[in-house]
Amino acid sequence: MEKALVVLSGGQDSTTCLHWALNRYADVRAITFDYGQKHRIEIEQAEKIADLNNVEWELIKIPSMAGRSPLTNPDEELGKYDDVDDLPEGIEPTFVPARNLIFLSIAANRASAWGAEAIITGVCQEDFGGYPDCRRVFIDHLEYTILSALEGVGEPIRILTPLMDLSKADSVILADKEGAWESLALSQTCYEGSRPPCGHCHACHLRQRGFKEAGLKDPLLQ
Amino acid sequence: MEKALVVLSGGQDSTTCLHWALNRYADVRAITFDYGQKHRIEIEQAEKIADLNNVEWELIKIPSMAGRSPLTNPDEELGKYDDVDDLPEGIEPTFVPARNLIFLSIAANRASAWGAEAIITGVCQEDFGGYPDCRRVFIDHLEYTILSALEGVGEPIRILTPLMDLSKADSVILADKEGAWESLALSQTCYEGSRPPCGHCHACHLRQRGFKEAGLKDPLLQ
Repeated sequence: MEKALVVLSGGQDSTTCLHWALNRYADVRAITFDYGQKHRIEIEQAEKIADLNNVEWELIKIPSMAGRSPLTNPDEELGKYDDVDDLPEGIEPTFVPARNLIFLSIAANRASAWGAEAIITGVCQEDFGGYPDCRRVFIDHLEYTILSALEGVGEPIRILTPLMDLSKADSVILADKEGAWESLALSQTCYEGSRPPCGHCHACHLRQRGFKEAGLKDPLLQ
Repeated sequence: MEKALVVLSGGQDSTTCLHWALNRYADVRAITFDYGQKHRIEIEQAEKIADLNNVEWELIKIPSMAGRSPLTNPDEELGKYDDVDDLPEGIEPTFVPARNLIFLSIAANRASAWGAEAIITGVCQEDFGGYPDCRRVFIDHLEYTILSALEGVGEPIRILTPLMDLSKADSVILADKEGAWESLALSQTCYEGSRPPCGHCHACHLRQRGFKEAGLKDPLLQ
């Protein structure tokens, strides 16, 4: 297989996907979005991860997202939880409407212009905080949408989601198998943008639980 | 009906759609994209059209589009044609990959945050220069995609395309009926960005033919 474009947020899942792609494609590039996120350290970490793996990387600045997510809205405060079991049900307040749709649409432009046959994203419907745009039904519809938007223009582009049905624990095991460990030490999960991680936000709790259930120690904490 | 968001390029079709929306919705807003297009005058004209109609308007700067379209790529030259019948078959070289997908994805973010029930776009599969992302099949897939991306978040958002199956002549007749004439005098169609229009680019030829077949005089030329 030839060219794959990875949407790299700098987090654990997209970092795992970068290694999954590197093990399967001859030519891999990564793109990272600056969408006005408060935890801007993830952009720096994404660049470091791309550099570590000699992957051509593009930072794409997109307009600030509208909505009440504390990830982008300075007036909204991030939830803190003592325990992973305290996480709220339903759609997490951090949800940014249409964020993945916008990311993957711009990825489609870049993939088409580059001639890539695949866009790879780390979305996962298992541990997704209720985000509707991390589900397979969304990705399937979007894949058809991109195929129809670009029909007759180069080769069809697929959207690959290696983590879609994996638990966080299984994602950790996959990351180990794909050789992502050194990159995972650079990855940024904490919504607070802390290094070392705050340990109390939604994202930190899910990461901790994943490594615990996989029986492996998070290289970020070593 | 309540709130509708119009994607306003400043061209003839989206201007007609703005009036179609104003005649049907209580609250209408318009967004225009700055995507690095060479004919930047269309942005100024879009603002003038929004002002003329007292419509709240947002200019959204998005990353430059990758690809070889002469609309965005400074190394590519725009085609000139003596006659409308000389226009090439197939996908026009001006096609920008995934442009409408990106526009409508960002529109979905804005519509969701605002609580709009409809996004209105002037795409048309009749006179579309072979653009695959102006067809109903694309819009239908995208509507499902947006519904799944935002499932459980507010009310469902529809994508309305009042011009989808109209010829350019029928669009002109609709514009007249919807009271868009004064706005059409401000609209910008010419790919060269000329006012008065160059008369020789793909877009000018289609506009001329539409008014001619409708038996009406283009207010832009009066």
